[in-house]
Amino acid sequence: MSEAKRPLAVGVVGLGSMGMGVARSLLRAGLAVHACDVRPEPLEALRREGGQPAASPAELGAKVEALVVLVVNADQTEKALFGPDGAAATLPRGAVVIASATVPPEFAERLGARLAAQGLLHLDAPVSGGAAKAAQGQLTVLASGDPRAFARAEPVLSAMAAKVYRLGDRPGQGSKVKIVNQLLAGVHIAAAAEAMALCIQSGADPQATYDVICNSAGSSWMFQNRVPHILQGDYTPLSAVSIFVKDLGIVLDTARASSLGLPLTAAAHQLFLQAAAAGHAGEDDAAVIKVFPGVKLPGATRG
Amino acid sequence: MSEAKRPLAVGVVGLGSMGMGVARSLLRAGLAVHACDVRPEPLEALRREGGQPAASPAELGAKVEALVVLVVNADQTEKALFGPDGAAATLPRGAVVIASATVPPEFAERLGARLAAQGLLHLDAPVSGGAAKAAQGQLTVLASGDPRAFARAEPVLSAMAAKVYRLGDRPGQGSKVKIVNQLLAGVHIAAAAEAMALCIQSGADPQATYDVICNSAGSSWMFQNRVPHILQGDYTPLSAVSIFVKDLGIVLDTARASSLGLPLTAAAHQLFLQAAAAGHAGEDDAAVIKVFPGVKLPGATRG
Repeated sequence: MSEAKRPLAVGVVGLGSMGMGVARSLLRAGLAVHACDVRPEPLEALRREGGQPAASPAELGAKVEALVVLVVNADQTEKALFGPDGAAATLPRGAVVIASATVPPEFAERLGARLAAQGLLHLDAPVSGGAAKAAQGQLTVLASGDPRAFARAEPVLSAMAAKVYRLGDRPGQGSKVKIVNQLLAGVHIAAAAEAMALCIQSGADPQATYDVICNSAGSSWMFQNRVPHILQGDYTPLSAVSIFVKDLGIVLDTARASSLGLPLTAAAHQLFLQAAAAGHAGEDDAAVIKVFPGVKLPGATRG
Repeated sequence: MSEAKRPLAVGVVGLGSMGMGVARSLLRAGLAVHACDVRPEPLEALRREGGQPAASPAELGAKVEALVVLVVNADQTEKALFGPDGAAATLPRGAVVIASATVPPEFAERLGARLAAQGLLHLDAPVSGGAAKAAQGQLTVLASGDPRAFARAEPVLSAMAAKVYRLGDRPGQGSKVKIVNQLLAGVHIAAAAEAMALCIQSGADPQATYDVICNSAGSSWMFQNRVPHILQGDYTPLSAVSIFVKDLGIVLDTARASSLGLPLTAAAHQLFLQAAAAGHAGEDDAAVIKVFPGVKLPGATRG
């Protein structure tokens, strides 16, 4: 049977909000989608929509030619590929692994070498855009890897992403740009919280301040996106405090390896850690504003 | 002679890059512009363009019905109005003082009371937009004050600004929003520098990283605006390091007065102080990246 006549078989490891969105986008694009997850619920949900559940990454690997790994971090990526039930041992030679968790660049570089040693292609392909963009197949992918890996992954990338940046022909380049983005994203969320804490404490009008800043030199993507959660008192997690505890930790570890101090990142990380310690780890990351003592925050207007 | 038949007489105290831009915008709008500055050169330049030099704020005050104070800080604002040659003693009753320096909100509140005691109107009216927007008459004004002050200042505001936010009917409200903006602007410049230091140190491509971030959740107005200076190695000051040494100092002092800690602002302020101490006070504020040791910055591509 020729390639042109049957849909590409793609596996997705990890059906969190990002992975589920990607799996659904792949189904919509007409690909044959297999998936595994430690939880039965999302697997069953995907099965009802036409996906094929697998019991483990190893079982998944035997069925697909491309594998998207959308787990939380480097440890889970390691386990999905090289653990006792990992996919690296069962994927056919020449298959491509699209590794999309936020990981240290050095981990991505080593992963590329290990997969190559098994005859597998590797795309270092962290994503940006969150659950909403994942569901729409509109993610941004910050990718690097061998041109053959890009070619093999093309149908998958075009189904899951609105924009694919090609950042080099070696794994690691994609993850380097991703952690620079995470540094800024995390610092900007913490700065937005700090600024709104000062706004409220000083007696300025929070909504008017938000409107002015959105049109001024103090604006950021995160300020525009997260401050409405504070104004509405709604900390339903779109992206949780715990994500930036993790991601700024990766940023700091990466910089520390080359003795680079990052004072703002370190300060922002401490704020997210304090928020997590105070019981807000699972709340929206805008809840980092709750660590500023004595600031009377707007109450919930819904929920 | 009726109001409608002669142009409003406006004074400008301080002909730095902001004040000169405002004075020229007022001239273009057909107002009668008087000005003073401690330096003779900008006064002479303005005279050639149709402005009227004055020897002191006191001399200026006797000639105008509206006074724009565009000096560097609260001390200079104090001196321009209440110093030995200050304008408050000579301005006619009912004249409006448009105080546009970045000052502590508490200073703006007290200033309003003192001017009112002399029969003068006061607009707390810090500006945003920099020298370029000032020259075009396209500033953003974050204003608060008595409605009569707004009414009296209207011809001046429409000549100097593209957008006037009315933030309340008491002095102080404008300056409160302005310092929240300065907190974010300063932290975002320092964060942009820190992020690009990590980018360069980790071996990511600086230009590609810039392009990706400008289209990602890590973006900010300042990142987009200042990182090109780093990429071009061009630290010609559009806004200098010393400005954020000053402005983040005001932010921290204001918060400290109500025992509010601002960890990111404090970290950013330290970076600007270090940059100033290292001899970069007069360079563009993007030069704060020079305090990250061991980072090989792009060289100058011009100048």
